[in-house]
Amino acid sequence: MSVNLKKPLKKDILPVPGFSFLTFNAKVKEKSKKNDFLIFELNDKALTAAVFTKNKFCAAPVILAKQNLTKINPRLLVINSGNANAGTGKNGIVDAKKINLLLSSKFNVNPNSILPFSTGVILQPLPMRRITQAINDNCSKQIKYNSHWIEAAQAIMTTDTIPKAISQKFFLSKHEISCTGIAKGSGMINPNMATMLGFIFLDANISKKMLNCLIHEVVERTFNLITVDGDTSTNDSFLISCSNLAKNKRIETKNSLYIQLRKNLMGIAGKLAEMIIRDGEGATKFIKIEIKNAKNIDEVKIAGKAIANSPLVKTAFFASDPNLGRILSALGNISAFNINTNLIDIKLNNNFVVQKGKIALSYSESKALKAMKAKEFMLSINLKRGKTTATVLTTDLSYEYIKINAEYRT
Amino acid sequence: MSVNLKKPLKKDILPVPGFSFLTFNAKVKEKSKKNDFLIFELNDKALTAAVFTKNKFCAAPVILAKQNLTKINPRLLVINSGNANAGTGKNGIVDAKKINLLLSSKFNVNPNSILPFSTGVILQPLPMRRITQAINDNCSKQIKYNSHWIEAAQAIMTTDTIPKAISQKFFLSKHEISCTGIAKGSGMINPNMATMLGFIFLDANISKKMLNCLIHEVVERTFNLITVDGDTSTNDSFLISCSNLAKNKRIETKNSLYIQLRKNLMGIAGKLAEMIIRDGEGATKFIKIEIKNAKNIDEVKIAGKAIANSPLVKTAFFASDPNLGRILSALGNISAFNINTNLIDIKLNNNFVVQKGKIALSYSESKALKAMKAKEFMLSINLKRGKTTATVLTTDLSYEYIKINAEYRT
Repeated sequence: MSVNLKKPLKKDILPVPGFSFLTFNAKVKEKSKKNDFLIFELNDKALTAAVFTKNKFCAAPVILAKQNLTKINPRLLVINSGNANAGTGKNGIVDAKKINLLLSSKFNVNPNSILPFSTGVILQPLPMRRITQAINDNCSKQIKYNSHWIEAAQAIMTTDTIPKAISQKFFLSKHEISCTGIAKGSGMINPNMATMLGFIFLDANISKKMLNCLIHEVVERTFNLITVDGDTSTNDSFLISCSNLAKNKRIETKNSLYIQLRKNLMGIAGKLAEMIIRDGEGATKFIKIEIKNAKNIDEVKIAGKAIANSPLVKTAFFASDPNLGRILSALGNISAFNINTNLIDIKLNNNFVVQKGKIALSYSESKALKAMKAKEFMLSINLKRGKTTATVLTTDLSYEYIKINAEYRT
Repeated sequence: MSVNLKKPLKKDILPVPGFSFLTFNAKVKEKSKKNDFLIFELNDKALTAAVFTKNKFCAAPVILAKQNLTKINPRLLVINSGNANAGTGKNGIVDAKKINLLLSSKFNVNPNSILPFSTGVILQPLPMRRITQAINDNCSKQIKYNSHWIEAAQAIMTTDTIPKAISQKFFLSKHEISCTGIAKGSGMINPNMATMLGFIFLDANISKKMLNCLIHEVVERTFNLITVDGDTSTNDSFLISCSNLAKNKRIETKNSLYIQLRKNLMGIAGKLAEMIIRDGEGATKFIKIEIKNAKNIDEVKIAGKAIANSPLVKTAFFASDPNLGRILSALGNISAFNINTNLIDIKLNNNFVVQKGKIALSYSESKALKAMKAKEFMLSINLKRGKTTATVLTTDLSYEYIKINAEYRT
């Protein structure tokens, strides 16, 4: 199930200079019939920045990737689906290091230059025998790199119904930049502990410092504004890697090139994030929740997610039931800042539902019903507190969500 | 649907000296076929304490009841189901005041001595014409008080499948105390904005100051430790009223009588709270989540509810799927205090699942599966941070929950 989301065409997902990858089936889940192992090789000029889950039970690969990022420039990304290597204690770290050591000999790189990412079920050790075997089989003689980048997106899918990838070319002054992003997740905040992963590759020329700035600005306005079920996973990771092979003048400050690049990357990351929501587990609706005139982006996140994560609001979305009082109640439960309930306006698409904290005089239940019967609609909440406006994306809560998550391991 | 919850027998729910009530059908919902209006008359010696929802969009009756409580000793409680009178702005307050004014003339009491409570759908004005008519019909000539207290519990039901009431007699030194409590809610934190309401009546002799202490201590360890879906309603209210007709020495300090009384009231409030969870919307399981060795009761609440409100954990409960990594992840998302993940132990009934933050060596998936297939089980989380231990009660998240909430207004 997904809401107005088409599988990207193979021809539309383009390679990025400086990056190559291979995928194979490592049988991470014993009965896996699809490629579940992905290795990305980054050129030696590539600079990489990443952000990780804030879940305190973060997975072994997250711990190791964070450590390695501080040590040395990454040269390999190694990503498996089917097992999150989380809740596995020190043994989980030992396993991830063993894989890195093996790959370092195959690819002739420093083991600390390998960043691991895992996604799948948690509280289960990695099947090390099968993974080792698969690496030996696929990386020993001449390594066969894939040519179609859509296959990278396919290798990291778990409960996703559609591979998520997007390519875009844009200009920094007069120099063309190639950029491709892939992501997985049927919820960023995330169903099945299957986790959200996102990777964007581009050839732009940028300093490490500016890349680190950029990733935080991008993630805060894109992936951090989506939610399926409010459950932040143990493995969420988002990474941007720049091969620095493009001809643009190296970006060293927050200059106009930086602004241009940020705009483009926000567009790409935003589209990947939107794909995750459109493919949210059990989603029958795609809902935009615009929070207007908050004091800052944190208030947008808090208010938007208070609505987007309320089971009562989500079931009303599912039923196309304009039981919009549930939205008032969800807003009223925010304790992080003091909402003035007498100021709040709420619009459904372009029609007022609530004005100054109470039912709008112009409110028409039949119009609201019609709006909510569509597969997509927008709620707009005006907090009248400040000048920050942004949009949280979410789905409804359907029978199918329960089915997927109740039967995940069977 | 409810989990091991029987309808109380009429004979077991006893009147309390100093209190009488009447119920009638005011057609708050136009097609209502059951009594939906309840008026409690309190004797003139009765002292009353109440706590209300912290939702900032609190309903008109909550605003008015809070105000009136500060003014004068309550003599009437007026409770309707079927409409929450919330999100109704100033008109909602005006309506509630009109009802109070009408009742004040019927019962010959000060209008400020009347506390209103409403429960039901929000963002809809009260049907004042029908309510006024019903009050005139039922309270004009000789008022017919009900004799069976179970009828009070029945009048406040919304999506409840079973009326919730309990009576108990206990001694304060050698003096017998009568106590009856009623509650409604299929979720305290609460499905359908149908809200949780709880009322306990007793004849104990206690000062106003001590009663106010008591209610906070009781609610913090009972109603505040339950959750169905994490949605705190606009109308939640809990009240204790003492008619002071019993012969016990008046409780003026936190002496041994106070401790005895608190123990008994915690028992009664705890059982009412448990009934709400057992009758939680769509509940197929009743789950106790014991949080051990927290620093204080707030940490118990935060940790217990992080687990109890996670859709992923709840769907695993529903499926009897020991996908217990989801519990780790839910705990890892707590940001309010610093959990040391390397200390955490988790038990399912009496068996370790997690020890020191990772899979227990003795863990057996088949045993866990068996435990979770039961209608009731207990999770015990040892935080190893302090000395406070308490238990949060919750339900699973089933297809039926979605059905009830998606079809609430149809």
